[in-house]
Amino acid sequence: MRASVLRDVHDIVVEDRPVPRPGPHEVLVRVSAVGTCGSDTHYYEHGRLGEFVVREPLVLGHEASGTVVARGSEVSGHEPGTRVSLEPGVPCMACHECRSGRYNLCPDVRFFATPPVDGAFCEYVLLHERFAYPVPEDMSDEAAALVEPLSVAVWACRRARVAPGDRVLITGAGPIGLLAAQTARAFGATEVVVTDVTEHRLLMASELAAADTVNVGERNLSARGYEPNVLLECSGNAGAAAEAVGTLARAGRAVFVGLGGDELTLPISHVQTREIELTGTFRYANTWPTAIALAASGAVELDRLVTHRFGLDRVPEALTLSARDDTAIKAVVRPQE
Amino acid sequence: MRASVLRDVHDIVVEDRPVPRPGPHEVLVRVSAVGTCGSDTHYYEHGRLGEFVVREPLVLGHEASGTVVARGSEVSGHEPGTRVSLEPGVPCMACHECRSGRYNLCPDVRFFATPPVDGAFCEYVLLHERFAYPVPEDMSDEAAALVEPLSVAVWACRRARVAPGDRVLITGAGPIGLLAAQTARAFGATEVVVTDVTEHRLLMASELAAADTVNVGERNLSARGYEPNVLLECSGNAGAAAEAVGTLARAGRAVFVGLGGDELTLPISHVQTREIELTGTFRYANTWPTAIALAASGAVELDRLVTHRFGLDRVPEALTLSARDDTAIKAVVRPQE
Amino acid sequence: MRASVLRDVHDIVVEDRPVPRPGPHEVLVRVSAVGTCGSDTHYYEHGRLGEFVVREPLVLGHEASGTVVARGSEVSGHEPGTRVSLEPGVPCMACHECRSGRYNLCPDVRFFATPPVDGAFCEYVLLHERFAYPVPEDMSDEAAALVEPLSVAVWACRRARVAPGDRVLITGAGPIGLLAAQTARAFGATEVVVTDVTEHRLLMASELAAADTVNVGERNLSARGYEPNVLLECSGNAGAAAEAVGTLARAGRAVFVGLGGDELTLPISHVQTREIELTGTFRYANTWPTAIALAASGAVELDRLVTHRFGLDRVPEALTLSARDDTAIKAVVRPQE
Amino acid sequence: MRASVLRDVHDIVVEDRPVPRPGPHEVLVRVSAVGTCGSDTHYYEHGRLGEFVVREPLVLGHEASGTVVARGSEVSGHEPGTRVSLEPGVPCMACHECRSGRYNLCPDVRFFATPPVDGAFCEYVLLHERFAYPVPEDMSDEAAALVEPLSVAVWACRRARVAPGDRVLITGAGPIGLLAAQTARAFGATEVVVTDVTEHRLLMASELAAADTVNVGERNLSARGYEPNVLLECSGNAGAAAEAVGTLARAGRAVFVGLGGDELTLPISHVQTREIELTGTFRYANTWPTAIALAASGAVELDRLVTHRFGLDRVPEALTLSARDDTAIKAVVRPQE
Repeated sequence: MRASVLRDVHDIVVEDRPVPRPGPHEVLVRVSAVGTCGSDTHYYEHGRLGEFVVREPLVLGHEASGTVVARGSEVSGHEPGTRVSLEPGVPCMACHECRSGRYNLCPDVRFFATPPVDGAFCEYVLLHERFAYPVPEDMSDEAAALVEPLSVAVWACRRARVAPGDRVLITGAGPIGLLAAQTARAFGATEVVVTDVTEHRLLMASELAAADTVNVGERNLSARGYEPNVLLECSGNAGAAAEAVGTLARAGRAVFVGLGGDELTLPISHVQTREIELTGTFRYANTWPTAIALAASGAVELDRLVTHRFGLDRVPEALTLSARDDTAIKAVVRPQE
Repeated sequence: MRASVLRDVHDIVVEDRPVPRPGPHEVLVRVSAVGTCGSDTHYYEHGRLGEFVVREPLVLGHEASGTVVARGSEVSGHEPGTRVSLEPGVPCMACHECRSGRYNLCPDVRFFATPPVDGAFCEYVLLHERFAYPVPEDMSDEAAALVEPLSVAVWACRRARVAPGDRVLITGAGPIGLLAAQTARAFGATEVVVTDVTEHRLLMASELAAADTVNVGERNLSARGYEPNVLLECSGNAGAAAEAVGTLARAGRAVFVGLGGDELTLPISHVQTREIELTGTFRYANTWPTAIALAASGAVELDRLVTHRFGLDRVPEALTLSARDDTAIKAVVRPQE
Repeated sequence: MRASVLRDVHDIVVEDRPVPRPGPHEVLVRVSAVGTCGSDTHYYEHGRLGEFVVREPLVLGHEASGTVVARGSEVSGHEPGTRVSLEPGVPCMACHECRSGRYNLCPDVRFFATPPVDGAFCEYVLLHERFAYPVPEDMSDEAAALVEPLSVAVWACRRARVAPGDRVLITGAGPIGLLAAQTARAFGATEVVVTDVTEHRLLMASELAAADTVNVGERNLSARGYEPNVLLECSGNAGAAAEAVGTLARAGRAVFVGLGGDELTLPISHVQTREIELTGTFRYANTWPTAIALAASGAVELDRLVTHRFGLDRVPEALTLSARDDTAIKAVVRPQE
Repeated sequence: MRASVLRDVHDIVVEDRPVPRPGPHEVLVRVSAVGTCGSDTHYYEHGRLGEFVVREPLVLGHEASGTVVARGSEVSGHEPGTRVSLEPGVPCMACHECRSGRYNLCPDVRFFATPPVDGAFCEYVLLHERFAYPVPEDMSDEAAALVEPLSVAVWACRRARVAPGDRVLITGAGPIGLLAAQTARAFGATEVVVTDVTEHRLLMASELAAADTVNVGERNLSARGYEPNVLLECSGNAGAAAEAVGTLARAGRAVFVGLGGDELTLPISHVQTREIELTGTFRYANTWPTAIALAASGAVELDRLVTHRFGLDRVPEALTLSARDDTAIKAVVRPQE
């Protein structure tokens, strides 16, 4: 099979590799669509992400869908031909975190496109049967791939306990922010407001879910007198995160979805006197069935996020798209094309 | 009656004031003992605390106990002679926060010794009957006063959901830290570790509750390989708080009890990848019955915290004690002596 | 003013009474619309409801809306002319339940149409300003009245923690069941199934919210292989409740909304081995803003429930309607007509 | 090795069986002590328990401790000689319940002494390494075995959210009730009251943990004016359970620990108007480390519960002990003696 392999910083080539064979509880999946994510781009440009360093050639891509083509000896469901969305991290299921339902925190998880585990920018992948979820017929391959970032949004809304009555502020209208806005609305949020510095992203936020948007490049969020009680931080920008925390109402809840970097400076007096709760989030746990249901019912639109498509030989273009084209939302790699 | 009145920075005098008369739902309490708190000292030395500014003469003191001597027309319980511990903040009970059980966040609360509301460094105070709690006979007046800081610790343990199985780290062995350590143990914490930079405070922590102590002036907490899953931050020091957050285990919970200042710089990568929860706390709600029960059963020792006692005419000495004498833990003012 | 007064079982007359004058924190409301409820009918037919006995003449009606016409001395908002939905129970706000955010459990609540407190089948009522909620201009008077039963549904969904991913079974398609179905969907429930024994009610459930309905007079619910994980029991029928509990999935949650009677016989083995949670509910707390928002956004339709309207002189007809006309859903009394 | 085998109702014999060999992730444990439980007795006397039917010869016993004597190829810890307490149910770790932290509800769990899975009344057993927990040196073999019923009590207290401030009623002073009483106290419960009909059990409850006891054979619980806010039902008696639920305070929580039988008739009016929460419990999840810590610290005494000891050839005597001797609390089988 063909696989797009990261050999070094800015060095991706398409290689031939053997099609892998499924273990007893695994399915072999012919990959249909793989979304690109900022973490893929980061590995491509820096050869590392936080503590994870690319030391051996690595296949990137972790937002994937496909079709089951073979099954291990112990797999009973998943008839060949079943179209599936892939949950890309398989935890150990034996440690304390796994046993207490927080398997996203498993220190021994094997996660696609995280060194040394290969990802899905290739023609075939293996996955534990329980992490390959059948999708409805009328869900597109690309939507089935984007169930992964939707899961990030579902997890954020769960951690924030979003429900009717909540006024939700979402900072950042990239793919995660746009999904978080739709998901918050699907959780019943009474008001969803989205911030960004790019008008066309704010426009998309309005079209998809937001009652209001704020271009924080032009207007000061805190000068607005707006008091959300939930913040879903999706900008990845520490300054924006801190400013947004400072606008939260008493007993407000903030969930950090996309923060990178090393430090975040909080307005601690606001946090103390208003008893703000803040929570970091890392990936997701037990989200796939809910995310698929939200997409299947139309409560969340996934297909509209896909603005660009690439074949396996054009992965570098896909990974650098958003730096070149600020109208891009989500680029998808289609390994079979 | 005599009252100790703050007129200006570093200017406290004893004045004669009329004994107040109870409204329909109020009780008149002859004050027995009043603990001094860092906030009292701060008003004395700076004339303000955060957004609260002393513009009119103010009576300080909010950790108080006493004896009911008169009752308003609508009060049915609280026979004169009843010894009571005083919850010093009476909220509006009509706003959203009050109605949802978070009355400590009421924007219209009237709280002792917070401008423009007078406190308890005086011979008599009024209080709503429901905020004056009878105490058992064998609880001392001073212990009844210290139910207030104990309530801070109870609230912190509730917000942190401390229970058997938890490994609790407490930063700071001042009065709040020492109470938090005992309270965490009373909530069933499996392990309680306390940090400070003062040996005699750490010694007291060991005697009262801590399985282990760390002098963070001498040893680096994070170098210790110690992974608590709950942090109760009682040092008020932003650097210590950030370092302690960085030692938390996966899915750890941090509660900030005593942080002042404007900013706290968090190790955000640790917070994100481990899904740490952080919560500010502000005073307490619905803690008095539990705090009284903990003190009455002996699960928490209050009397041992009292190291110094002063009459009403020596309030300035009481407020500046800890700056002069580093063996002091808690100074108590006794208005009737 | 005119008031419809229950003097004895089956004995309601319209009397002239003085228009009451507001206390300092009260508003005087000219009543626009009042929904009738099974409890009103029960008082009319039996003179009592559970432990509450009608000993003095009583005005019934507690699902009310109106227009502010006068205000007490301390009321600052609520300009005369403001249209409001009325929360009919004013709790003491001093007891343990009130202070911990469960004011619906206040033993001293004064609740409309519950002896000895008069209700709203009359031209004017008084209410504490904080329990009269302004409604949007485009919300009808009748919808504003039905915010009360909608609050019952909101509270049920909160107690059941309904969220995306949940498969919700609702037993009973009367007004509360129809509102619970819509509300569950607004909370993001993935699947809503409604049962009843009346086809036209099931039809309405389908039109408003239900993905599926079951006529349990014809089909056996438990024979269906259907495994909801949330049950909102709105039928008031102990047998239906027990059967429905027996269909719940592992870790399922059941909320009893409308159960009367003295006893409910649970399938305890199912409850034990599947760790089912069951919760009684009584009225609501802190639901009005959320309920108004759900109705204002169109997430829940209230007007469609109103099938019949009556003037103040025809209250007995309104109260006995559903016994005579099984197409009736909700009868509304309009005191000004 | 020798194994005590149930062949039919009232037919247990000691057989020779081969010592099993550990799979890759298993440890082989030489069994030291095994507590007897009502479920073992029930299988012995009826050949079934609920839906589980003994169709093949079965080894009973699931409260076990022992010493590791061999390890599978993938086991890295658990040096031979390590003394361990055994968690007797190994779940599939792949289903929805397992993945969401409720592995006690796994439909595919393999649980000791539950047909067709053999238990621990024998000399050696195999167990997954992660379900064999090392115990401190000074914990006795019998205490290590009784970590199993202690886990039942820990789970009950967690489900009931027992914490300081709670007034806990425990119905039944058998082994589970006695452990629940101690555990509730270790969780910080302010008051623990235990009921039973046997004086010597109530006496033991008083000695171990209870502030008060009620002999419900002599006194009517509900006539006592006592309002607990938490009920841990450990009597297994539906009538006692219902009566106890009827004494709960507003917003009270009831956890059913030991109810068998098919039906429980609840006082539903009490449950509705007071918003009582009721929860079934089934075994436990993630309790062993906490239970071991509680026993190791002395917060819960386990050894005192053991009143009788038997060798492997006297298992029938052990299983019928409590029917013959009402001073018995817990009988332990010691397979090596």
